[in-house]
This record gives sequence, C-alpha cells and structure tokens, in this order.
Amino acid sequence: MAARYDILGFGNAIVDVLAFADDDLLAKHSLNKGAMQLVDETTAQTLYDAMGPTTIVSGGSAANTIIGAASFGCRTAFVGRVKDDEPGKMFAHDIQRAKVDFATPASPNGAATARCLVFVTPDGQRTMNTFLGACQNLTEADVDESIVAQSSIIYLEGYLWDPPAAKAAFVKASKIARSAGQRVALTLSDAFCVDRYRDEFLGLIRDGSVQILFANEHELHSLYQTGDFDTALGLLRGEGLLAVVTRSEKGCVVVKAETSVAVPAFPVESVVDTTGAGDLFAAGFLAGLVKDKDLATCAKLGAMAAAEIIQHIGARPQKDLALLAADNGLVL
Amino acid sequence: MAARYDILGFGNAIVDVLAFADDDLLAKHSLNKGAMQLVDETTAQTLYDAMGPTTIVSGGSAANTIIGAASFGCRTAFVGRVKDDEPGKMFAHDIQRAKVDFATPASPNGAATARCLVFVTPDGQRTMNTFLGACQNLTEADVDESIVAQSSIIYLEGYLWDPPAAKAAFVKASKIARSAGQRVALTLSDAFCVDRYRDEFLGLIRDGSVQILFANEHELHSLYQTGDFDTALGLLRGEGLLAVVTRSEKGCVVVKAETSVAVPAFPVESVVDTTGAGDLFAAGFLAGLVKDKDLATCAKLGAMAAAEIIQHIGARPQKDLALLAADNGLVL
Repeated sequence: MAARYDILGFGNAIVDVLAFADDDLLAKHSLNKGAMQLVDETTAQTLYDAMGPTTIVSGGSAANTIIGAASFGCRTAFVGRVKDDEPGKMFAHDIQRAKVDFATPASPNGAATARCLVFVTPDGQRTMNTFLGACQNLTEADVDESIVAQSSIIYLEGYLWDPPAAKAAFVKASKIARSAGQRVALTLSDAFCVDRYRDEFLGLIRDGSVQILFANEHELHSLYQTGDFDTALGLLRGEGLLAVVTRSEKGCVVVKAETSVAVPAFPVESVVDTTGAGDLFAAGFLAGLVKDKDLATCAKLGAMAAAEIIQHIGARPQKDLALLAADNGLVL
Repeated sequence: MAARYDILGFGNAIVDVLAFADDDLLAKHSLNKGAMQLVDETTAQTLYDAMGPTTIVSGGSAANTIIGAASFGCRTAFVGRVKDDEPGKMFAHDIQRAKVDFATPASPNGAATARCLVFVTPDGQRTMNTFLGACQNLTEADVDESIVAQSSIIYLEGYLWDPPAAKAAFVKASKIARSAGQRVALTLSDAFCVDRYRDEFLGLIRDGSVQILFANEHELHSLYQTGDFDTALGLLRGEGLLAVVTRSEKGCVVVKAETSVAVPAFPVESVVDTTGAGDLFAAGFLAGLVKDKDLATCAKLGAMAAAEIIQHIGARPQKDLALLAADNGLVL
C-alpha cells in the first residue's frame, strides 16, 4: 500500500513573537544567546513588555519543518496541541493554508496556546523563550495509529521531551512507525535540551527508535560531552544511523557508517534572522530523501531552504521552495 | 516655548495581517489590486479564511509614518483607537516600544481592534481589506488641545474620513494647530478614498486647513480627475501649498509655487512587499522638514525609508532609520 503521507511531524505547536534586540537587552534579562529556554507565563509577559515592536508568525520547530517539506511538494501532516484561542486559530489557519493536514483538536480550556518570544540580535542570531502552555496537553491519545503506520517518515522534535505527556506520544508514534516498517527522524532541537535529556536521546538512538538524526554542531557536542568536533562526529558515525550535522556558515556533514558527505552553506545576501534555519534544513533534506535523491542533493536542498529562511523574519518560508529548488537546478 | 513633539499623528489604529497571494486569488474575491477597500467583519473572516499563512505586524497608515519618524529620531506621539483586546494590546505595545507616545485609551467594549488583511502579490503590490472596528470610536474628545498646540507638525491621514466621528477629530486638530501657528500635513491615503471624499479634501487644501500634502500619482489623478500627470501637477502647484507626489520606481516630485524638486527612487535589491511605502516616504520627508533640511534632502530621506520598507514584509521599519540615513550620507 502506498503511504498516505511522505512526512508526519509531531511537535510543540507554537506562535512566534519576534523582535529585534541588542546584546544589552539579552544581558539585562540574563538570556543565553542562541539558546531556547522555557519560561512561565509571568516571565513571558515580563519579556514581552521588554521587547521592541514585534512580528507574529506561526512557528514550532517540527511544524516549521513540515511546512517547509509541504512547500517542497511533499504530502505532509502535523500533530500538535493549541488552545482554542486567537493564537491557536492563527496556528491552525497558517499550517492548514500551507497545505499540511492538521487535525489535532484545540484544547477548549486550560493553558493558552504556546508562544515563543524570540529576540533577534543584529548578527541574526535568535534567542528563544518558550511558554509551553497548551503543548502540555499533547498526549498518547493524539497519536492515530493508522496515520502513523501510513507515513513514510515520522519526524519528531527533541523539544517534545519538555512537556511530560508529549514524550509518551513520541514513544508511541515511534513504536507504531517501526512496526509498520516506516522511518523515524529526530532533531535534537537545542544544546540545552540535549543537556536535559542526554541519556534518553542516546537511548533512542541506540535502541533503534530513530533511524535519521538531525543535530547542529552545538547539540552534537552536548550529546557526546566533548568540545572536539571530529571526536563527536566519530562517535556519531559509530551509532550506525543516518545523521546530519549542520554547522551554520560552514555547511553540513552527512554521515552513515563509512559514508561522509560534506556540503557547503548556500550563499545568502544578508542574514536577517536565523530562527528556523535548522528546521528548514531538515525540511529540505527530508524532501530529498522522500524523493529518493542522493545524500548530497538532500543536503543541498536543506542548505537552500535554510538560506531562504534566514534572509527574513520568522521561520516559515516566504517563497515556494519547490520553485526555488528548480530555479537553483535542484530538480525534485 | 519649544514644541513638545516634532510630529503628532492621528490615524486609524490597525493591525496588519499579511499573506502572499497570486493574482487569481485577488480575482476570485473581486479584489482591486493595489487599492484599500473597507470590509465588514464577516467579509474580513471570509477573506482571512482564503489567505495563505500570515505575518502579523502592527500597521495603520499614519501610525506607520509616526513610527518611521521616531526611528529617524523625531519626538513623536500618536492618537488612534484600539479595543482592549489582544490585537489592541499588540498595537499599543508595538507603538510604545517604538518610542512613540501613545495615550489614547483602548475602548473597553464595542467592536474589535481594526485589522487590515493585506494580500501581497509576487510583484510586491499590496491589496488591502480593512475592517475598521474600534477605529469608529475615535472622536473629538480624543483630541488634546494642549498637545496639538505643542506639536510642530500635525499629520493626518485621509483614511480618517472613513470612520464618521474621526473626521470631527481631524477638523478639530487642524483648527487647534493653525491657531497655535503649527503646520498640518495630510496624506491622501488611497485613490478610492480620494474618490469618496474629493470635494472635502479639496476644501481642506483650499481653505488653509492643510499646509503640507502627500499624494501618490494615482491619488493625484483621482483628486483632479485627470489621467495626465503634468496637468494634475500643474493644478496641484496652483494650490500654493508644499506638496509631494510619489511615483513608485519613478521617484518623487516636490512642488511649492514655482519651486520643483525631483528626486529618483532609492535603489533596492528586490521588492518583497510595498505595504507602507508611502507611509515611510512621508516619515522620511517629515523628519527632514523637522530638522530644517532642504527639500531635496527631505525627499531623499523619504525615498530611503520607502526603500527599506518595501524589502521586507510589513509596514514598520526593521532597521534604525537614523543609522541608515547616516550610512547613506544623509545626516539628520
């Protein structure tokens, strides 16, 4: 039976609130540049009050990836929890209008839809503060067995380890996918997230729960607790899965057993906001995999999508990525 | 006594909801490309449902201009009505954080904060659909006589003629400003808006209510009901006020009695979204006037600010305009 979806994503359903900020503002609020920290609703309000004028765009790491993959022409679906409030309606509108199937019911009460306050510094770096809110309501019950079994790739974000009940949804989806002979991809999400759940993430990698891994350099160093890139890459290669390590302007490295493919970063005019760079890299790479492209082409598609996203505010693509790929000689 | 504010703006307080769209979508919903139409809340919902993924940024024509002027370093304030709802709080947060004094109280009940659904086509053109909502609650009572009298330039948008009570606020502000020896600037806003209120706008120009006029080519043609630019410009010159006509990529022309200054458009890498181009042109021009620059420099500042705004989504500047001016040799 042909798969119903090319990629099915599970993630925190978040609306991003972005503003430009200088390094002094980060320091004043003790924000760790480049990282994602979890905040409660009161802290979220304090940080919002301190932000400059904002741009509001739907976000969420895995959701961004799924939307990117849809823009590349993949058949996609997403599972994540919002509340039935204005931001929740915005999230649902935006993902559905991006041609992604999104049917997780909005919570009628309880915490508000999650928001991420993103401070963007002049170097384009983003510093994220997430109030998880309604994401806490994602549970095993939101995992539809038949849909998971009919999806070629299940894409899961490491951030799902933060809301306690979502982890169970993650594990359930992974088990169903494996039983159905489908592949499971995981992004490590954030170096501090890896620090919180290192042993569990290594467990998923080593017990066969995950066949495809995305990490950036910082996350890789955190995973293996080493500051040496080659040491970390050697350890990653030893895990035996298909792994992609992104290195910002240094491009990326794809490893699988003895295979290594290095692809340079895609040229950009100017970096405005790196929010979503990793998410969109994963979108391009997975779109290539789904279309049976070689690993170098997959990596080039990822680099191209990341380059699109960092040249404007927000982590949702503003161009049709399939057209952009064709314009760049990357036929899907 | 030195003025308290360089520029005090009155306008509709609006949150913009922007999405990319193709010409077919405009045709399907009978939208008049490049224009602003007023819609009721039901139509606003229908159009929202039809829009692609959105970016939400505070807007409002005069508000955009005032924020641009603040970014140029002018002392500014804004008068406009929102409701005490989430979009209203966003509007207030964004304008206050842009260092503009904004003290108009939010309406506790009644219609929702105004929103403008903006369809951005691949040519960068924007087509606007405005639900006025809480803007209907702006009245004469919101005009603070002492603040108006202490502001060097009062900036008013033609769109204020749409919500019936706002017109009275406009007229009151203009009278106070003139009595106090301050200048009043008006933007004609939109060719269809001119069509709705042509005689009243000509009345304001001819009875001395307005000393500075901003119009684009289409609005100028609508004002004088002629398709010939030179004819319209000749009639405008005859009015005797300081008038600036913007012509998109053809630059602008400033006229005052026998004086004429033509300044080319500022170079841009690529046009993404023209929303706010006219608003930011006015911001730069007025910032120059406030700083006693010659008319050509004022026009260059306007062209530079317009160029910044059309290279990204939304009508609020993403760069510090005073710094950008300095980088371009335009010292304020």
